[in-house]
Amino acid sequence: MPGANDSEDGWRDTTIDASAVEGDPERAAAVQGIERIRQSIDNIDSAIISLLAERFKCTSQVGVLKARAGFAPEDHQREDHQMKRLARIAIDAGLDPQIAQMYREFVVTEAKKRHERIAQAGGDPGVLDIWA
Amino acid sequence: MPGANDSEDGWRDTTIDASAVEGDPERAAAVQGIERIRQSIDNIDSAIISLLAERFKCTSQVGVLKARAGFAPEDHQREDHQMKRLARIAIDAGLDPQIAQMYREFVVTEAKKRHERIAQAGGDPGVLDIWA
Repeated sequence: MPGANDSEDGWRDTTIDASAVEGDPERAAAVQGIERIRQSIDNIDSAIISLLAERFKCTSQVGVLKARAGFAPEDHQREDHQMKRLARIAIDAGLDPQIAQMYREFVVTEAKKRHERIAQAGGDPGVLDIWA
Repeated sequence: MPGANDSEDGWRDTTIDASAVEGDPERAAAVQGIERIRQSIDNIDSAIISLLAERFKCTSQVGVLKARAGFAPEDHQREDHQMKRLARIAIDAGLDPQIAQMYREFVVTEAKKRHERIAQAGGDPGVLDIWA
């Protein structure tokens, strides 16, 4: 197969490459389609990364406000509200609501890890607020 | 503390509630600030969930195109490109690049799990393309 080779771990690996499918119009059309969709995936990833940067800024601010006011970091009512809301938005958007649930776990886990990394590096990790 | 109570698992839990801090202007200001930022967090989450829905649509399409053309699902060159690109975007956005890395792992893991869930439920999971 043009552009295909066995990868180190034994999986087959295909580098999508227009020059490798020259003279094969059907495959060339597939390569063109894949490249077009990959551009959209890259744009979506850029947007999500930028939004995640904003989200972590927001949760840090909430953490500082809570600590100053003497509020505990955890807020179960807020957590319930967020989980139900995210599931509803996912269904509306045509996304499996379990993925929305895992997204929430992802941001919580990463906030915890980020806090630990900064502390281990001897920096000031600031206030941990993973629930916000 | 107003609005504070011990949660089942022993963690302290504070429900952010304006009525609980009446007569305490400093805490009332903190509650107002937290509620304002939480609205931004909710907006960011809505945007991310919608983008994730689009992203999964894109990767499914790539999976179908690859399978039809006889290309292997994996593409290490694309993977390297994506990882470097996401790290660069994260740094520009003021986000820890390790979080961008974990975001990528999150979408890969969820694509796999989603595929398994659909197959287990007896449905047609379609073509698995977790790398796209």
